[in-house]
Amino acid sequence: MTRVGIIGVGHGVFGRRSDATVQELAFEAFRDALQDAGIDRDAVDASVVGSVPEYHKQRSLAGVIQEYLGLVPKPTWLTEVACASGSAAMRTAWMAIKSGTHDIVAVIGCQKMTELSTPEILALMGRVGEVQWESGFGTTFPGYYAMFAKRHMHEFGTTREQLLDVAVKNHHYGALNPYALFRKEITKEKASASEDVATPFQVYDCCANADGAACVILASEGRAREISKIPIWLDGMACATASMSVLRRPSLVGLPSAERAAGEAYAMAGIGPGDVKVADVHDCFTIAEIMAYEDLGFCKKGEGGPFVADRQTYIGGKVAVNVDGGLKAKGHPIGATGTSMTFEIVKQLRGEAGERQVPDADVGLTHNVGGIGQYCFVQVLKRD
Amino acid sequence: MTRVGIIGVGHGVFGRRSDATVQELAFEAFRDALQDAGIDRDAVDASVVGSVPEYHKQRSLAGVIQEYLGLVPKPTWLTEVACASGSAAMRTAWMAIKSGTHDIVAVIGCQKMTELSTPEILALMGRVGEVQWESGFGTTFPGYYAMFAKRHMHEFGTTREQLLDVAVKNHHYGALNPYALFRKEITKEKASASEDVATPFQVYDCCANADGAACVILASEGRAREISKIPIWLDGMACATASMSVLRRPSLVGLPSAERAAGEAYAMAGIGPGDVKVADVHDCFTIAEIMAYEDLGFCKKGEGGPFVADRQTYIGGKVAVNVDGGLKAKGHPIGATGTSMTFEIVKQLRGEAGERQVPDADVGLTHNVGGIGQYCFVQVLKRD
Repeated sequence: MTRVGIIGVGHGVFGRRSDATVQELAFEAFRDALQDAGIDRDAVDASVVGSVPEYHKQRSLAGVIQEYLGLVPKPTWLTEVACASGSAAMRTAWMAIKSGTHDIVAVIGCQKMTELSTPEILALMGRVGEVQWESGFGTTFPGYYAMFAKRHMHEFGTTREQLLDVAVKNHHYGALNPYALFRKEITKEKASASEDVATPFQVYDCCANADGAACVILASEGRAREISKIPIWLDGMACATASMSVLRRPSLVGLPSAERAAGEAYAMAGIGPGDVKVADVHDCFTIAEIMAYEDLGFCKKGEGGPFVADRQTYIGGKVAVNVDGGLKAKGHPIGATGTSMTFEIVKQLRGEAGERQVPDADVGLTHNVGGIGQYCFVQVLKRD
Repeated sequence: MTRVGIIGVGHGVFGRRSDATVQELAFEAFRDALQDAGIDRDAVDASVVGSVPEYHKQRSLAGVIQEYLGLVPKPTWLTEVACASGSAAMRTAWMAIKSGTHDIVAVIGCQKMTELSTPEILALMGRVGEVQWESGFGTTFPGYYAMFAKRHMHEFGTTREQLLDVAVKNHHYGALNPYALFRKEITKEKASASEDVATPFQVYDCCANADGAACVILASEGRAREISKIPIWLDGMACATASMSVLRRPSLVGLPSAERAAGEAYAMAGIGPGDVKVADVHDCFTIAEIMAYEDLGFCKKGEGGPFVADRQTYIGGKVAVNVDGGLKAKGHPIGATGTSMTFEIVKQLRGEAGERQVPDADVGLTHNVGGIGQYCFVQVLKRD
């Protein structure tokens, strides 16, 4: 069966984008991806939009974007799985191509997080936990992940310092990423002096909402080889779920969905975690990146803290992780995060990442989590 | 490449379902579909949820449903394209199987339309039109479709009586459908005495919001033949778009997305409109069903009015349309409508439609529209 290749990627600046509507953000990323691929929009057979609709005033988002991109009358539809929506759109487009339904599909991850008021946003976010039994009792995203962190510290001796090591690393690389929301280094001293959020988290443990869009154009193997000098192959593409109610999880120190999706993606691509040179993982909170190292098999369970403290996830370490700044420094426009991750890995595998380039990057990975781990999507990308 | 077969269908009662949460509605339909297929839920490899998330209090809907159905840790994700969300989920699942990614996929179309207050619902619905240039100036769904109706009457002489013929037919069949919201016949006299909505529409020209769910289980050709005595084949599966801004449409008397999707679905299935014995079409307003006859090629453009007046879309006519009551009498739980349509056609092609059975039904069709025609999905279904 045909492989699926990536022929073009585009990325807008993440941040408070009061200069642009969501369809304008989508257009920026789409235009850049077309130029990157060297194709005209007429070559695109369909689009899939990854976004969480309820944060926008405009309903029927895929329709308004399709019109704005000039892709009518071709098919479009939207996928939603909370913060992993862009990755679900990637997987959908990948299936569209593998099934022979379409040859070239544009995936548009996009989100405006600043259209609604802060109380409206908070109300929406509070209800991403299970409403009947959990969120009604006051659980929030920082609260859930803080529980994971406390438990990880308890079971494995993970330290507050190690959590901050994640933040420092991601701000270090974010400072070098022209698309990032926060383009400045931070120190552990600064981070540990920031306001409390939910123990053990302070402000610098948490990613920030942002507006943004990123686009990835996928093609069938034949078309990818014709169009692209360096097609990047999506050889592993997996999704798994975990119970949304945390009260039904057997453990709080990892995401079972991530472990399972990683296993499937590695098997599909015929690789193991040791082959991955560069990865973008879902660091919505500092502990999330540490759990990701372990769930993905970059280190053993419980050793994620020392792994980052030893700089094993810096460029030059065992595997470079979030060298685009991650959600932490890049910002987290929820629908766009999945395609933004793929953007970064494609640039790395092509050798186009500039001063953040990981040497000899031939195999890369993305790990994107929806909600509190009820969904996880893992992609394995390869260069020929 | 493998055909995709339908092995099981399930349907709950449409209406004000204050007895059930949205995940409970999903469960009802899923359980019935499993029983219909004669398989255990462990045989299901993934689910796709078709729904419009913003009408629910619970966010991350696919995750909460996956847990409630007992399908964790398998993949799930949600598709949204306004009223066609269930059909986008069908097309996504179809691609998942055709691509070899999954063997058996459950598609859950579901929606609670009565969780939010009426003003909240109206505000959401108003924003399914293009927000920047249209809905801000007061356009609404009934208003858009009333424009289509007025123009159709002007260009083709379609009459008020013919619009009401659609409502009378659909209530006639809805009265016989145990899952329908309105299970009573109406007369043209009664309908034309009902309250005005948007000229020429009165209350009985409009479908009603409802809560509900319907489930369809799809399988690869091999698995479908093993599992099902009468697999129903999804041989045509098309999607097309039209500009969401009505101000950019070349004409108001049909939906270009529907015409295009129909053409593609017919070609894919190797049939023409004359082969279709039974169809479920998107009759959100009476004019929508008349335009559907024409866009699908059941009659010529402009002749839809006389076509229904001559009872050509009753059982015994040229093609039986909406003999489950349509959106009009069955109710319109937006995410569930697409899978509900497929449910009906599967029952008809299997010969299980009871007193509403269309004789010799071997080829059927569904036509589902999102918004005001910015999306249209057409399926062609066949019995061996």
